[in-house]
Amino acid sequence: MFNEFGKFIKLTTFGESHGPALGGVIDGFPAGLSINFEKIQKELDRRKPGQSKIVTQRKEDDKVEFLSGIFEGKTTGQSIGFLIKNTNQKSNDYDHNTGIFRPSHADFTYFNKYGIRDHRGGGRTSARETANWVVAGALAKQLLSTIKFQAFVSSVGDITLKKNIYDLDLSLTESNIVRCPDSETADKMIKRIAEIKKEGDTIGGIITCIIKNVPIGLGEPIFDKLSARLAQGMMSINAAKGFEIGSGFDGTHLKGSEHNDIFIQNGKTLTNNSGGIQGGISNGMDILFKVAFKPVATIMKEQQTIDEKGNINVIKGKGRHDPCVLPRAVPIVEALAALILADFWLLDKVRKV
Amino acid sequence: MFNEFGKFIKLTTFGESHGPALGGVIDGFPAGLSINFEKIQKELDRRKPGQSKIVTQRKEDDKVEFLSGIFEGKTTGQSIGFLIKNTNQKSNDYDHNTGIFRPSHADFTYFNKYGIRDHRGGGRTSARETANWVVAGALAKQLLSTIKFQAFVSSVGDITLKKNIYDLDLSLTESNIVRCPDSETADKMIKRIAEIKKEGDTIGGIITCIIKNVPIGLGEPIFDKLSARLAQGMMSINAAKGFEIGSGFDGTHLKGSEHNDIFIQNGKTLTNNSGGIQGGISNGMDILFKVAFKPVATIMKEQQTIDEKGNINVIKGKGRHDPCVLPRAVPIVEALAALILADFWLLDKVRKV
Amino acid sequence: MFNEFGKFIKLTTFGESHGPALGGVIDGFPAGLSINFEKIQKELDRRKPGQSKIVTQRKEDDKVEFLSGIFEGKTTGQSIGFLIKNTNQKSNDYDHNTGIFRPSHADFTYFNKYGIRDHRGGGRTSARETANWVVAGALAKQLLSTIKFQAFVSSVGDITLKKNIYDLDLSLTESNIVRCPDSETADKMIKRIAEIKKEGDTIGGIITCIIKNVPIGLGEPIFDKLSARLAQGMMSINAAKGFEIGSGFDGTHLKGSEHNDIFIQNGKTLTNNSGGIQGGISNGMDILFKVAFKPVATIMKEQQTIDEKGNINVIKGKGRHDPCVLPRAVPIVEALAALILADFWLLDKVRKV
Amino acid sequence: MFNEFGKFIKLTTFGESHGPALGGVIDGFPAGLSINFEKIQKELDRRKPGQSKIVTQRKEDDKVEFLSGIFEGKTTGQSIGFLIKNTNQKSNDYDHNTGIFRPSHADFTYFNKYGIRDHRGGGRTSARETANWVVAGALAKQLLSTIKFQAFVSSVGDITLKKNIYDLDLSLTESNIVRCPDSETADKMIKRIAEIKKEGDTIGGIITCIIKNVPIGLGEPIFDKLSARLAQGMMSINAAKGFEIGSGFDGTHLKGSEHNDIFIQNGKTLTNNSGGIQGGISNGMDILFKVAFKPVATIMKEQQTIDEKGNINVIKGKGRHDPCVLPRAVPIVEALAALILADFWLLDKVRKV
Repeated sequence: MFNEFGKFIKLTTFGESHGPALGGVIDGFPAGLSINFEKIQKELDRRKPGQSKIVTQRKEDDKVEFLSGIFEGKTTGQSIGFLIKNTNQKSNDYDHNTGIFRPSHADFTYFNKYGIRDHRGGGRTSARETANWVVAGALAKQLLSTIKFQAFVSSVGDITLKKNIYDLDLSLTESNIVRCPDSETADKMIKRIAEIKKEGDTIGGIITCIIKNVPIGLGEPIFDKLSARLAQGMMSINAAKGFEIGSGFDGTHLKGSEHNDIFIQNGKTLTNNSGGIQGGISNGMDILFKVAFKPVATIMKEQQTIDEKGNINVIKGKGRHDPCVLPRAVPIVEALAALILADFWLLDKVRKV
Repeated sequence: MFNEFGKFIKLTTFGESHGPALGGVIDGFPAGLSINFEKIQKELDRRKPGQSKIVTQRKEDDKVEFLSGIFEGKTTGQSIGFLIKNTNQKSNDYDHNTGIFRPSHADFTYFNKYGIRDHRGGGRTSARETANWVVAGALAKQLLSTIKFQAFVSSVGDITLKKNIYDLDLSLTESNIVRCPDSETADKMIKRIAEIKKEGDTIGGIITCIIKNVPIGLGEPIFDKLSARLAQGMMSINAAKGFEIGSGFDGTHLKGSEHNDIFIQNGKTLTNNSGGIQGGISNGMDILFKVAFKPVATIMKEQQTIDEKGNINVIKGKGRHDPCVLPRAVPIVEALAALILADFWLLDKVRKV
Repeated sequence: MFNEFGKFIKLTTFGESHGPALGGVIDGFPAGLSINFEKIQKELDRRKPGQSKIVTQRKEDDKVEFLSGIFEGKTTGQSIGFLIKNTNQKSNDYDHNTGIFRPSHADFTYFNKYGIRDHRGGGRTSARETANWVVAGALAKQLLSTIKFQAFVSSVGDITLKKNIYDLDLSLTESNIVRCPDSETADKMIKRIAEIKKEGDTIGGIITCIIKNVPIGLGEPIFDKLSARLAQGMMSINAAKGFEIGSGFDGTHLKGSEHNDIFIQNGKTLTNNSGGIQGGISNGMDILFKVAFKPVATIMKEQQTIDEKGNINVIKGKGRHDPCVLPRAVPIVEALAALILADFWLLDKVRKV
Repeated sequence: MFNEFGKFIKLTTFGESHGPALGGVIDGFPAGLSINFEKIQKELDRRKPGQSKIVTQRKEDDKVEFLSGIFEGKTTGQSIGFLIKNTNQKSNDYDHNTGIFRPSHADFTYFNKYGIRDHRGGGRTSARETANWVVAGALAKQLLSTIKFQAFVSSVGDITLKKNIYDLDLSLTESNIVRCPDSETADKMIKRIAEIKKEGDTIGGIITCIIKNVPIGLGEPIFDKLSARLAQGMMSINAAKGFEIGSGFDGTHLKGSEHNDIFIQNGKTLTNNSGGIQGGISNGMDILFKVAFKPVATIMKEQQTIDEKGNINVIKGKGRHDPCVLPRAVPIVEALAALILADFWLLDKVRKV
């Protein structure tokens, strides 16, 4: 249905930002995997609010509690239930929001669709939900221990990381608070976000993701192409507006003779315009994709809007919000990518006799 | 599974370009709709090969036969089976292809994944499959008779339609063979494709799609966001490499105060950077998205490649191929969009008591 | 996948009897329904352990906590997360069970399938899971407020309720601890269970369910026949071994001329051998079905068995177990039936234009 | 959705008895299996009409045409499309049926649900659909070549095969036209069906199915128990009214100490009241289940009924119908069982690391 992701390893989630807890159920996870709980928490810490000056100052521990499916440290093959309690809601921050639609939020659409909405922090539409994904993705990463997922911030507004991805030391991604592996560009990004924050405004950007050591054969035609599932996953992230695999939009400028990835003897290709996926199936090259994020809709400036009765009104953000979602979205991108690959990895084991 | 699309109206397909027939089953289509068969054929004609000098010269009638689910011209609510016979295969055109992997095709990945591949015309990986989608999409369009789907070619290589979409007369899209609503740009595109064809090369481009008269409320959080499902659908099209909704990648350059779509009294918004979707749900504004297509992989030039045994070889396309898929992809984009919206439209009827 | 039930209203569950909590997510539940929480608890109380002398004496409050999807007492259309904490586990009761397979339990199959098992109380295989179903079923009942679900115990071992269902006052079902609406038969059943319990043995029986005020049109051919989905649901209950709709196995003795349900003017039928379902779709008559339950596998007597290494051993039940599951299974049968009908009821709204 | 069966190997079907063809798509079938087409046809021949004097005399070749997914005799991992043309419809036989509801058929429910029905031969509700299942089941049997599926007729009306299943020579099942492995009982059954046919009446009965050489571990808790999926499958067959696994309804008379299947050293059990399934998972013992079929609804006698306007009318069957579905249902039961086991067999390969 709507709150579930994946086919063979399926994550089903629930939770609102101002309810007692978020959580989910991971169904189909194979038995017998020893779980490293610390690594899961580390992923959550990468996403959590309050981790630096350029993200929301909301304080949440984001401690995950596993309620089932793990026995004596190992997965049992049974559904894994988990919970992340909300501990630092300030619902009053949203009182001004009652009955009024925040521009470019989901307030208007939810109210019209469901006839009811939880105005506190966006309710179910809050990106707080993505904490659930990070938990599931962290498990998927452990299942796919040889595959390496690395996302990073490649642009913030007009500040773009221009270096070739293979000239970067991606291990530096976590060395700065904006999660850009090039320290010079990172500094500019951080400065830009700080300025924007001071203005009471917000800014968008792009996350690039590279996945290494991908086995050949992940993905299924026709409608489960790995590229299509990645697109769906990434476009599920709050504020995502665009997705590119491999050459993406730039590839439209090339001729076939320029764009084709020529095979060399070992089955690798000279170039990787395909982004590691051909005919919807991984070809063993690095998977490369990009996700565009719009600027956060909540700004600390007055904007015209309407209320539930259709009257013109004015609204201004209050409380603790992200001036730029990019730094915290990096682990989310990785988590979804890991979930998708884990799903296809299991599946690929049964696609030939 | 893999060959199915949609949740409540579900299309399941089969067929290879060089088998006896393509076809599919449409499950969940509501009973009682009078079907206009001529309109369905018209959509197939927009996609079919041989329709102009800038597309493949393969000749296929692409006549659809309905085998079930329609009684005395009306849908019965039962599964709709249909067939499109292949009549003009020239399998010999692919003899040179036996055991050799065409660059940037799915040959290598299929062979490695399944241990077997139908080398004739790409087998299941052929874009011939998309004829099935056009059939199903044509039915969906009839179900959503008040919603208007209009895709068009907005760029071919470096030739880009620069006008604002609201300054175009979209009814002119079908007036030229490249399906660009601006005749001047269309001429340039046609000329460019003709040149590229003469070179034995191919070229990519971008399709823009606008959907008008969309009711508020289509799409479902969290993982069935309308934007995410559109992304998945569009990225399922052969050669698709990128997807943008609303402001897309360009939107990453804006501040929140610039990007936010301000509400006016009737619930409409001043701008439409959201592309008609907020929080994953249609907001009643026009839905606007773009799809990037890489240049066709089959070129009439020699390229280095490897064979199934890993030996270096040389390959050169033979037979009748598209120098540019864009003109024929226009009805495919519309068809998938219609299927997705029909799915959510049905669903939205049961989302509140 | 495996831990989910339903299509449009989908319940996904987790939890082991000796873990911290059970729970689940209900996805697809429509927005705008006012929830009566007391009624939900009442259903849980009908299922909970310790409610009478003829059921297990394990003490559990079985209080459900809703974590999402309900705002100010009304459903929001978002996924409904809920939790039932385990408070009275005595895991030591199962120490003798480590490494040994209890006969006719799932110990052997789980261990062989997953290579790991939670021996405490059967882990995931415990019928404690059914508390989750009762929560979801109680919500479904509120959605279908005009449909009446009534299950009751119609046999315990050889003691059978012989009266015609329409000669019974079903409102008396809850008037005795065995949940048989005929007080005389109920007394015999209670006595029989008490005897069996004293012996350290267990006993099976049959539950009959009648559903009244069912609208015409619930169920979908071909593989979602209402009868098939009821069968699947009921056979998911621990210890279920048989399912009958309408005339069931007895109907095999009749000729067509005897078995056919003759229509009368108002669309009703003279007889109801169909059990309210024809061609897989409800016909507006009462739905009637039966479920057979085997005797509980855990007995307080010594039985030969083997251990995980294949050695012969002897096992004897310890702790607090049901001598007969029937009385507590009554609300479970109703809950699943309600979930199934709610699913089809929503769906039926979109099956014709 | 509704016309699909299975999860990992998924069959989606279409077709009405009086349309041009039936058919379906099998999705998820693994690549690399060499297909024996003769064996598939043999299964269809077991089900086909006109095969003996005690079944319908309708003549259909029931030749299956595969349209995709098989290349040079081997499955390719791509969706397998297939077609069975209808060649011997006599739609006029159903003219008397226009606008009138046949008792205990699906006419009334379909008309009320969908507002439209194909009155010719029951349209989609015809058991002709089951030919599709036999095709898919025949492929599943070839995938599971070491598992043996054997169904047989164990009762017709009051004539019951009383011998223990292990005292029967099941290889004799196909030696007579009623498909009962005991020749003496078979003769009685055949005689009984012939009498009933002469009366213009119909008769029901029971099919028993045994599955041998089943690996341990097929089936998944909680809602994909092998027993539950078998129940769903079998109750999807036209005219099915009851399902039992192992001890079934008879098991309700036993005490736990009598019913429990005691383990012996090799992991086998002394008895098999479980019917080869414990906790929803196969335990390596033979799987044993029964399916009850009501008498066919179409009889050659006048019955009171109503028409679409609610007026009382009289109807009498015409044309060529089965006096007893049991003999032809034997291969259908096996086919569904094979599909279900194939699904779980694939799945079981990925349930532990």
